[in-house]
Amino acid sequence: MKVVLLSHTPEPERLVAAAARVCYAEALPEEVLAGMTPEEIRSFLARLLAMDHLSPFEHASFTFAVSGVSRALTHELVRHRIASYSQRSQRYVKEEGFSFVTPPSIAAHPEASRIFAATMDVLRRTYAELLRLGIPREDARFVLPNACVTQIIVTMNARSLRNFFALRCCGRAQWEIRELAWRMLELVRRVAPGLFIDAGPPCEATGRCNQGKLSCGRVERKKREGEKCAD
Amino acid sequence: MKVVLLSHTPEPERLVAAAARVCYAEALPEEVLAGMTPEEIRSFLARLLAMDHLSPFEHASFTFAVSGVSRALTHELVRHRIASYSQRSQRYVKEEGFSFVTPPSIAAHPEASRIFAATMDVLRRTYAELLRLGIPREDARFVLPNACVTQIIVTMNARSLRNFFALRCCGRAQWEIRELAWRMLELVRRVAPGLFIDAGPPCEATGRCNQGKLSCGRVERKKREGEKCAD
Amino acid sequence: MKVVLLSHTPEPERLVAAAARVCYAEALPEEVLAGMTPEEIRSFLARLLAMDHLSPFEHASFTFAVSGVSRALTHELVRHRIASYSQRSQRYVKEEGFSFVTPPSIAAHPEASRIFAATMDVLRRTYAELLRLGIPREDARFVLPNACVTQIIVTMNARSLRNFFALRCCGRAQWEIRELAWRMLELVRRVAPGLFIDAGPPCEATGRCNQGKLSCGRVERKKREGEKCAD
Amino acid sequence: MKVVLLSHTPEPERLVAAAARVCYAEALPEEVLAGMTPEEIRSFLARLLAMDHLSPFEHASFTFAVSGVSRALTHELVRHRIASYSQRSQRYVKEEGFSFVTPPSIAAHPEASRIFAATMDVLRRTYAELLRLGIPREDARFVLPNACVTQIIVTMNARSLRNFFALRCCGRAQWEIRELAWRMLELVRRVAPGLFIDAGPPCEATGRCNQGKLSCGRVERKKREGEKCAD
Repeated sequence: MKVVLLSHTPEPERLVAAAARVCYAEALPEEVLAGMTPEEIRSFLARLLAMDHLSPFEHASFTFAVSGVSRALTHELVRHRIASYSQRSQRYVKEEGFSFVTPPSIAAHPEASRIFAATMDVLRRTYAELLRLGIPREDARFVLPNACVTQIIVTMNARSLRNFFALRCCGRAQWEIRELAWRMLELVRRVAPGLFIDAGPPCEATGRCNQGKLSCGRVERKKREGEKCAD
Repeated sequence: MKVVLLSHTPEPERLVAAAARVCYAEALPEEVLAGMTPEEIRSFLARLLAMDHLSPFEHASFTFAVSGVSRALTHELVRHRIASYSQRSQRYVKEEGFSFVTPPSIAAHPEASRIFAATMDVLRRTYAELLRLGIPREDARFVLPNACVTQIIVTMNARSLRNFFALRCCGRAQWEIRELAWRMLELVRRVAPGLFIDAGPPCEATGRCNQGKLSCGRVERKKREGEKCAD
Repeated sequence: MKVVLLSHTPEPERLVAAAARVCYAEALPEEVLAGMTPEEIRSFLARLLAMDHLSPFEHASFTFAVSGVSRALTHELVRHRIASYSQRSQRYVKEEGFSFVTPPSIAAHPEASRIFAATMDVLRRTYAELLRLGIPREDARFVLPNACVTQIIVTMNARSLRNFFALRCCGRAQWEIRELAWRMLELVRRVAPGLFIDAGPPCEATGRCNQGKLSCGRVERKKREGEKCAD
Repeated sequence: MKVVLLSHTPEPERLVAAAARVCYAEALPEEVLAGMTPEEIRSFLARLLAMDHLSPFEHASFTFAVSGVSRALTHELVRHRIASYSQRSQRYVKEEGFSFVTPPSIAAHPEASRIFAATMDVLRRTYAELLRLGIPREDARFVLPNACVTQIIVTMNARSLRNFFALRCCGRAQWEIRELAWRMLELVRRVAPGLFIDAGPPCEATGRCNQGKLSCGRVERKKREGEKCAD
């Protein structure tokens, strides 16, 4: 998996803070924007987060290039609808000799690993053979597995990203999209810490888990071990 | 492929017409709703369509149960974001002995057909074997192909459906989602003709194609053959 | 203020429960739908709510006719973007002798009340006079006040409604939209209790307030008075 | 009216073109991005527009500060739901001595103009008086007119902007939001001509009007005068 932060709104923290301040200010928006010091920005963002006033976070967006991930992952990813996607098309791109993602549980199991790799080989050969027989790419792709890698450009605004992180950094999320989520979170925290300081799974931000019986047990474990919870 | 219209807003045409009329009316909405005759509803909807005034069409929604379609199709389908989806999960449901969709181009080609079927057999066996080795479902599914069938509940409002039909009934859409789109269009036309009378590919509604060099040639063909165009 | 539930998805609880179950089921969606008993539906919905698994709630939508509310209210209302609106237009409808909403704080204050009513009279006369002078409605409306009543058709799905109730039933919401939110909640609870049983402000559902220093103090008050909290 | 382009995605044309190309490319997204020449970007964008392939245009967003516009305008503006807004609040900001927008039809008519200005004076006095009597701002604002100025931060992506321009640059749009739309279009064309070259009302882009009997007649007028149409 490779995750690159391709682009983002310049000075995202300043923009979000200024937008929020316009709601309460008498000055012109462009003056508000220019006039805030880094300290004011930071403390203003902290207050917005404390009040759960998240709409100004939408003004900043972030674009990622994600590659080396499975189509299983992207089928989950694109269910997030407050986002924009451009994905490599299996209808148009030839997938001969495709790369694939091997789940850790399979990689760790020699027998499963062998079977898995052999099957991928069969699929590559079948795909190539179907093309050779004149089957169009958009139909030959019906044999391609969920494991097949893809690449996708994803743009989300900071509010939608925060929701994405809350759901997909959670221990109950599927392992591959969880890895993607944590990688994305790391990247945006670097350029806009004030927008994502407390982002991530609810247990991290609040010390509480909302997964009921399905909980991964992390909060309970932390409590047993005497770790401090955020709450 | 099986497509069932599971549910829809009652009296969708009346509701849309009444909502639109409220914008210009002095009467209370509930009176407007009750007071329109079928003729008024029909002619009012026709005027809205002629003016491209589509926002009132959002008040009516339609829920479909779609089964026997491939995961290739649903990966395309869920890219329509003004919609709601609930899909059978390959993380939780055991896919042993899964059914699969065979593309017509493959079905029509004996050699391709044989290879395709044999590969599906390999995949079923691999999937079962991985489970037997203790690999969790959410990882064993990495061998499952795009051809694997799935089922999904889809809800869209009439405006979003009209956009879906414009894009996916088009001759350039992939064949499987195109079939789905036409089946859905047929179902909603039966219960709400006034909302979908002119829905479908732009060439059907306007006699013009917007696909440039990629056009399927249908409009040109019709013109050559002297058929009347809508435009 | 008058709030009427104009229309809604038939059997909304059954549809939501069935859609959610399809994610984990082997049966066809239409069989799942038909096969659930009222008890199964209720207990399944409760589990979805406990896990915060809300996407299936989107399949059910609800359409309200709202009249006798101020334009101040609708300017706030239409900021909810996962919703559909059709509103009486001040560009097209003549607002001569418009009705208006008087805020309770003004109604309760004789002097303020007198000034307010007199001003409304001035505005009605000005509006009528501008029309008489040939000014088009869309420009004469520039003198109309926030208090001026309007009517609007609103459609939201159950998930978006739950978010609306969480924000607008809260003691910090503006009084007029708060009244609207509670009226809408009452209406949908009657037809779909299982979807909205725990809807409303977070303090009601969880016993906790997320408004920090801006809290209305209701939770603290309840705790002082020894009332049981949901949490 | 003052419209400032506060911020936008850096190199928006390159990002959109690269995102679109990833759909058909074998190279990594970050390589595609770096590798495109300005000419390739321009010609690729032109092809996307010709095919109506607009989803990649969503990756670029633009943030505007709009001030000196009426609340009548913003009530229309915020109906565009694929957008983010932060608006000066009349609940929290004191509007004593508020500025107001005078419609041109009123400004051009001495008698109407006089009445209008006098009414604004009455409203300023009433508002101030209500505050003096202890009425809270959020209730005193009920006397504020549609003409009252406001300021708002608006973020839209390029695709949503194109739709906004198609609807609001049209001769049938209300004059104030039409001016805003043209001002915004001018600003984004300067920084991203390739994304907005053909944006604006449909008659401009295609030489055809879709407003039926409600048409402003511009296309017909142009045809009569022998001007070349785009179509």
